[in-house]
Amino acid sequence: MKIHDISVSISAAMPVYPGDPAVSIEPVLQIAKGDDANVSRLSFGNHTGTHLDPPAHFVPGGKSVDQLNLSTLFGPARVVDLTRVQTAITADDLERARIPKRAVRVLCKTRNSELWARAGFQKDFVAFAWDAAQWIVDRGIRLIGIDYLSAESFGASEPKTHRVLLNAGVIVIEGIDLRNVAPGNYTLACLPLKIKDGDGGPARAILIEE
Amino acid sequence: MKIHDISVSISAAMPVYPGDPAVSIEPVLQIAKGDDANVSRLSFGNHTGTHLDPPAHFVPGGKSVDQLNLSTLFGPARVVDLTRVQTAITADDLERARIPKRAVRVLCKTRNSELWARAGFQKDFVAFAWDAAQWIVDRGIRLIGIDYLSAESFGASEPKTHRVLLNAGVIVIEGIDLRNVAPGNYTLACLPLKIKDGDGGPARAILIEE
Repeated sequence: MKIHDISVSISAAMPVYPGDPAVSIEPVLQIAKGDDANVSRLSFGNHTGTHLDPPAHFVPGGKSVDQLNLSTLFGPARVVDLTRVQTAITADDLERARIPKRAVRVLCKTRNSELWARAGFQKDFVAFAWDAAQWIVDRGIRLIGIDYLSAESFGASEPKTHRVLLNAGVIVIEGIDLRNVAPGNYTLACLPLKIKDGDGGPARAILIEE
Repeated sequence: MKIHDISVSISAAMPVYPGDPAVSIEPVLQIAKGDDANVSRLSFGNHTGTHLDPPAHFVPGGKSVDQLNLSTLFGPARVVDLTRVQTAITADDLERARIPKRAVRVLCKTRNSELWARAGFQKDFVAFAWDAAQWIVDRGIRLIGIDYLSAESFGASEPKTHRVLLNAGVIVIEGIDLRNVAPGNYTLACLPLKIKDGDGGPARAILIEE
């Protein structure tokens, strides 16, 4: 068994979506200053780095991150190769991506994963066109992952992709790093912090290869 | 397959270890106020609620939470019944707890789990006596869990339990809630946020029952 960590590191230097809070990590107790232990304070947006979008992110009264079904967040997942897509993933792209008919969890590996090597937020990431979002819903996929900070193209005039996915209760994982993962079948464990009424959930995500 | 969530909810109302930062969750964007989405800022200590202690918490130069071996954080785990212990778990208590000889991950269910029903921090929780910590190390256990906010008795004159465990590289999970979990065998997934150089890691922890 091999475990692949597909989470990005949380630090003050990480890229953050424009408008989201900056990441701050400050020491509270320090052994170097005579304290018994090291303890830090962490302050960040709940859509920082590798994280989940629950319905409550866009749907008033929608399920919050602590209410998500854990059986969707753990189980078989397919990583698909969409590295040739340049701007937005369309329904046609997904149709050709060899997604098994009954797939519940699909993670999209795109050229985005290479963007993690660049400092600062990158606007030119690949996201889902709204017809791709509708395809995902129609296909019965319950969890979809994308390898940069949003499922929606930067500067979209309205957040149609998010609304299509979240209104249908599809769990969206954003901010995974698939650079070192080959397309194929894995077991996914994507566990967000259990934030009460949370509209987003910073998460650790791993892929288990049997 | 059944999944048990053994994590506690993160909210401003949750109990926090004395001296640790308070938990704050504040809205940044709100649909109710005309924004497209809901986004919040979360500020808390990295030893809040269900969390991991990596060596760096007590050992200068020790491994930080982002450096922990994921193969220790996912795999077979034994939940043992120590609900009769009133003050501190001793080596004798562990000797009698029917822990399998080759157990790698052990979660201790104590009367602590009932403390989660009480508001505010509770000082009279059950922790590990230092001889229990030494027993855990000698037995080759790599991950130990306790169901309240510290592995160390409150007000201990020195943090001997933490030092014994963390110097030996044992991963300590604190703040799990085992109220609804029966003693026995499970698969544990305990995934902490990947905080760069983190001296602690807020985590989501689940037990998978086959």
